[in-house]
Amino acid sequence: MRSVAILGLGQTPIAEHWEKSLRVLAGEAVFAALNDAHLDNADGLFVGNMLSGMLNRQENLGALIADWVGLRGIEAVKIEAACGSGAAALRAGLIAVSSGAMDSAIVVGVEKMTETVGPQTTAALATAADADWEAAQGLSFVAINALIMRRYMHEYGWKHSDFAPFSINAHANALGNPNARLHDAISTSDYNRARMVADPINLLDASPIGDGAAAVVLVPTDRLHPNGHPIVTIAASASATDSLAVHDRRDPLWLSAAAESARKAYQQAGVGPQDIDVFELHDAFSIMAALSLEACGFAERGQGPRLALENHIGLAGRVPIATRGGLKARGHPVGATGMYQIVEVVEQLRGAAGANQVAEAKIGMAQNIGGSGATILTHILRAE
Amino acid sequence: MRSVAILGLGQTPIAEHWEKSLRVLAGEAVFAALNDAHLDNADGLFVGNMLSGMLNRQENLGALIADWVGLRGIEAVKIEAACGSGAAALRAGLIAVSSGAMDSAIVVGVEKMTETVGPQTTAALATAADADWEAAQGLSFVAINALIMRRYMHEYGWKHSDFAPFSINAHANALGNPNARLHDAISTSDYNRARMVADPINLLDASPIGDGAAAVVLVPTDRLHPNGHPIVTIAASASATDSLAVHDRRDPLWLSAAAESARKAYQQAGVGPQDIDVFELHDAFSIMAALSLEACGFAERGQGPRLALENHIGLAGRVPIATRGGLKARGHPVGATGMYQIVEVVEQLRGAAGANQVAEAKIGMAQNIGGSGATILTHILRAE
Repeated sequence: MRSVAILGLGQTPIAEHWEKSLRVLAGEAVFAALNDAHLDNADGLFVGNMLSGMLNRQENLGALIADWVGLRGIEAVKIEAACGSGAAALRAGLIAVSSGAMDSAIVVGVEKMTETVGPQTTAALATAADADWEAAQGLSFVAINALIMRRYMHEYGWKHSDFAPFSINAHANALGNPNARLHDAISTSDYNRARMVADPINLLDASPIGDGAAAVVLVPTDRLHPNGHPIVTIAASASATDSLAVHDRRDPLWLSAAAESARKAYQQAGVGPQDIDVFELHDAFSIMAALSLEACGFAERGQGPRLALENHIGLAGRVPIATRGGLKARGHPVGATGMYQIVEVVEQLRGAAGANQVAEAKIGMAQNIGGSGATILTHILRAE
Repeated sequence: MRSVAILGLGQTPIAEHWEKSLRVLAGEAVFAALNDAHLDNADGLFVGNMLSGMLNRQENLGALIADWVGLRGIEAVKIEAACGSGAAALRAGLIAVSSGAMDSAIVVGVEKMTETVGPQTTAALATAADADWEAAQGLSFVAINALIMRRYMHEYGWKHSDFAPFSINAHANALGNPNARLHDAISTSDYNRARMVADPINLLDASPIGDGAAAVVLVPTDRLHPNGHPIVTIAASASATDSLAVHDRRDPLWLSAAAESARKAYQQAGVGPQDIDVFELHDAFSIMAALSLEACGFAERGQGPRLALENHIGLAGRVPIATRGGLKARGHPVGATGMYQIVEVVEQLRGAAGANQVAEAKIGMAQNIGGSGATILTHILRAE
């Protein structure tokens, strides 16, 4: 298995892109990544996407996007792991390049969700959960997370307002990210007064959907060419699963697939939580930020909110999270999110995160979650 | 890259499985494959599926099926490449095992299509085509293939009845396959009188959809254990793409992705068309059988039907195709089809194809097509 580097990056703003189709969005990110890499082609294309069949009436995205970006003929495929599709596509591309099956790969996460909002989008997102045992009972995806959050508050004695710092941090960081969906700072009082979505999750606990695409170009580290950027390699890649249905887990408040994929990733990279300078976690809901921090060893079980309350999650904190806004404020175009996380971690490790730069960031981690904890991928990147 | 063998096989009959959900079907094939391999687990699971989001309201199939088969926690993901999803999942599993990223993998193709028939299924299948430039114009998937077939008949001077031997051969071979969807021999007169679907494609040119799952277990060849079966290895694996929209191709009658993936596969395996003892091709429509034979070097351009008319495609012919019924009569549960092809080729190479056994079969090829030629995967298997 060869070491693999991320040579190029590209992303579109996350927004309601009424004038751009799915392939146009993907193409913008791919072209930007190829330009950034100083390349004009690659051997393969891996597309992370969850909802294109249901919301855009389009499958076969691998061939579609390969053709659109002028690379008709190359190997191409779509990878799906619900909201973890982006990182799952990265892992597939990584294995292909590190194995020698190909010498370069483009990985793009893309999702176009805002053309069909309302019940149709809610129903499509519920396919990340167990259709027979959760969605068929009327549980939307936010409702499942609301049950988890309510139970967590009950078990560990937290109040709803204790989660406010997660959302405040994310919104503050998004102000410096031109690609973020939301650009409004929020206060504790805004958080406490936000409209209820599914009790106890209110509008400021929940990430906004959106349209967007983010891409990288992968090459073997020993075949890098200079492109003006510091070298960033993939030091670890791991994936693990859990039951889709939350009620079927031994402990509904423990993300075992996060813990397992993080354990493997730490081992591969030879690091521990104390070595992570930046952590882009999957804060689709504020409760998920807390659970991820605990599963990955940054906080004791039940103590995730304390990290935020004690101000350890900011750009100068012990574990900076959501440094470009996170899912909460950068936005959550579901199948693309995992690739936004990767692009953002590379920006940090390149020292190119602008107003959001974490000082001396050398090792970054990204964790992408499909379903309410069912498929979880953890990647660790390193500035060489 | 390590050599990889197919140690275990499993499949369900293709039928209207009203009493079995998607995960139950997948589980039956996976359990059968693990039993056949004399294993009770694997490091990873790769699921080939196209339509689960649209037709079964279920995504995140990797984690779902891993959990259902008792392997909660292992790495798992879904691969989508329209009707080529099955072979695309095989290729992903193959790269993971051959690279050393894992030491064993289960690959399962699964599709459950008959709960929601009629316009909804037709619309879902159309997502394999170009949503903006084909489906949005009202073209169903069968209509696209009808345009190709009409043009082919015009260019090369074939009559509709010249395609009859493809369907007659497939139906005859399905009689010996207990897992086939259709078990009725057909005559030339049946073929000529069949109801029209989309002129010139009639009911006996078109493959039936269905519910089903087929699975294999992959292990490195140097770590095989005896399980009572002859050893079958994957000698070649290749994938290529083309435009989704047929009108956008230089020649709408030439499957360039079939030719390219076959060329790469022949090169990897060090063989040519003359060495292939069994060829499971993607006869979703009879015209596709002709085009595949041409693109893979078994017939001159425009001369595919001649192979069939001159009786070279039967079990004792020069290039036996659809040996267990093909898509036409074994059935076409779209995301599972590529894995049925692989299972059938392995059965032939094991000498376990019963009434359909091709004598002295040592090298077999399977070709799986996503869309009307957009994503094409070619695998060559070898009896060691």
